[in-house]
Amino acid sequence: MKNRQVWLCSRPNGIPQATDFALREADVPNISDGEFLVRNQFLSADPAMRGWIADKSTYWPRIEAGDTMRAFAVGDVIESRNRAYAVGDKVMGIFGWQDYAAVKQPQVMRKVLEDDLPLSLSLGVLGLNGLTAYFGLFDICRPKAGETVVVSTAAGGVGSAVGQIAKIRGCRTVGFAGGLEKVRQCVEDFGYDGAIDYKAEGDLDGALARLCPDGVDAFFDNTSGAVHDAVLRRINLGARIAICGTASYASWDPWNEGPRPERHLLVKRAIMQGFLTTDFSARYEEAVAALAGWIREGKLRYREDVLQGIESAPASIAMLYAGENRGKLIIKL
Amino acid sequence: MKNRQVWLCSRPNGIPQATDFALREADVPNISDGEFLVRNQFLSADPAMRGWIADKSTYWPRIEAGDTMRAFAVGDVIESRNRAYAVGDKVMGIFGWQDYAAVKQPQVMRKVLEDDLPLSLSLGVLGLNGLTAYFGLFDICRPKAGETVVVSTAAGGVGSAVGQIAKIRGCRTVGFAGGLEKVRQCVEDFGYDGAIDYKAEGDLDGALARLCPDGVDAFFDNTSGAVHDAVLRRINLGARIAICGTASYASWDPWNEGPRPERHLLVKRAIMQGFLTTDFSARYEEAVAALAGWIREGKLRYREDVLQGIESAPASIAMLYAGENRGKLIIKL
Repeated sequence: MKNRQVWLCSRPNGIPQATDFALREADVPNISDGEFLVRNQFLSADPAMRGWIADKSTYWPRIEAGDTMRAFAVGDVIESRNRAYAVGDKVMGIFGWQDYAAVKQPQVMRKVLEDDLPLSLSLGVLGLNGLTAYFGLFDICRPKAGETVVVSTAAGGVGSAVGQIAKIRGCRTVGFAGGLEKVRQCVEDFGYDGAIDYKAEGDLDGALARLCPDGVDAFFDNTSGAVHDAVLRRINLGARIAICGTASYASWDPWNEGPRPERHLLVKRAIMQGFLTTDFSARYEEAVAALAGWIREGKLRYREDVLQGIESAPASIAMLYAGENRGKLIIKL
Repeated sequence: MKNRQVWLCSRPNGIPQATDFALREADVPNISDGEFLVRNQFLSADPAMRGWIADKSTYWPRIEAGDTMRAFAVGDVIESRNRAYAVGDKVMGIFGWQDYAAVKQPQVMRKVLEDDLPLSLSLGVLGLNGLTAYFGLFDICRPKAGETVVVSTAAGGVGSAVGQIAKIRGCRTVGFAGGLEKVRQCVEDFGYDGAIDYKAEGDLDGALARLCPDGVDAFFDNTSGAVHDAVLRRINLGARIAICGTASYASWDPWNEGPRPERHLLVKRAIMQGFLTTDFSARYEEAVAALAGWIREGKLRYREDVLQGIESAPASIAMLYAGENRGKLIIKL
């Protein structure tokens, strides 16, 4: 029995490509006292992985060439030397792009207890995506019923959850997405009041003015760039802007240039705030309970895009940035 | 008895100059029911007045050519048809660049009750400047004891109060100011732990690194521009950035360009927030009580720069932006 691993063989400056990774076979690890062995069932591909690899300052220690790629994964405990984790437990955490992981407690994000829901959801709507939507919306955007909430990458794993939860809370929701099919998803599947195809729309300001006649009270931004600037021009007094990602940039170093927001934030008395979901770890169970409840009630829909086999992992990050996926991108082992 | 008024005769795009105003004599106004007549003793010159005049979106209705210039002023009630205001009351509010004003209740910012302190302070450290420092620091910057607070235009009417109050709260304080004399003021008069002459310093990042060895936890920004960018590069996780002004710009329209902050706000989980002091009007008396207390205890120092006569008003806004004043700029009638 071998442990297949996808490892980083070169560090890209921009978006990680398939050729930056390679596949190797290692031995299944032995576990030490306090550890347990997880057999991964699903691996995750997330936009944030680009930041984990990036050369410069990012929020977690960077991954070095030769390392197995850091990744969220979900699987089963198949051997344990830790009393808190029993064989048969389902766990989600940072287990890497590999078949087997010797896991220490701090790597675990949570035990998966929702036996009635698919295990893979723990990598998406019940995992980082749903948690990010939940905390970014409620703790940063803080929308009131009747307010207008705008979301970028609105059909994506995070954005689709943001839009639906804002709708559950009684907000008007408007999304930006790339391409007709995603715009259709926004409106038909995820209940947005309106959606803008940022790739085709030549007049972002005009489109926003039509869809947000009362201005924008909260903006959940995953992209930065031209969409961000257009939304900023349309914000109301006291608007809240959550910075969740900056997907529109091919490179982060040097800093991208653009219109400076300070004067506008002043005139509008607005807040722009960056956040990381992991800062809210003490409240994960509160969020998962709410998200699982909405899923069971049919109020929170999700899409998954499942790649087959660990061989498909290396190309997956570039797929995300190209917008090729139609839902939360996961890799089934 | 005539009422001399300074009125706007042309609308500048950039910084208002003396030639944009003219002086005229009008009759002393008659007061209607509910109004009272104020004889101004001191007029204020504030950086914000540029925004009140500007052609494009600003936070208050713009001033039209022909209007008497909107301005804070402090004076005595000399005639009253409003029961809440008696002859002899001292009042501060938006009474304009003129000798006499027929005042309605909403124009009043507050009654001045601190008889033991100079009346002119109500236009500075006990007025908009002190209130702006108080709310911007406590409600937006929210510093804890031991944290590092950086202030731009650190020797100015607002900045000097911010630095001293942060020091009273047990913070390390570092200021940016223009010129050796202002840097000396920062350290010797206003108790900053360090000050940087942004006009002479060729390496803002190096100077900040020396004076803020533990990074920057809160930034009270009055300038934007190069100083803002350097401080942003030095912020700690969870930093709070209060946008109080953008004095470094010659023009606001079109928006100034520069390095985009979104990625950095994300990585640092930082907040950038614009605020206006007038949004905190319900808490003015709380703030004035604290500020007056610190003044009486000798903990909060201030400087005034007094121009003589209403004829000096037209040039006063340009003086502020040129950094020619050595303290809160007021005009004595």
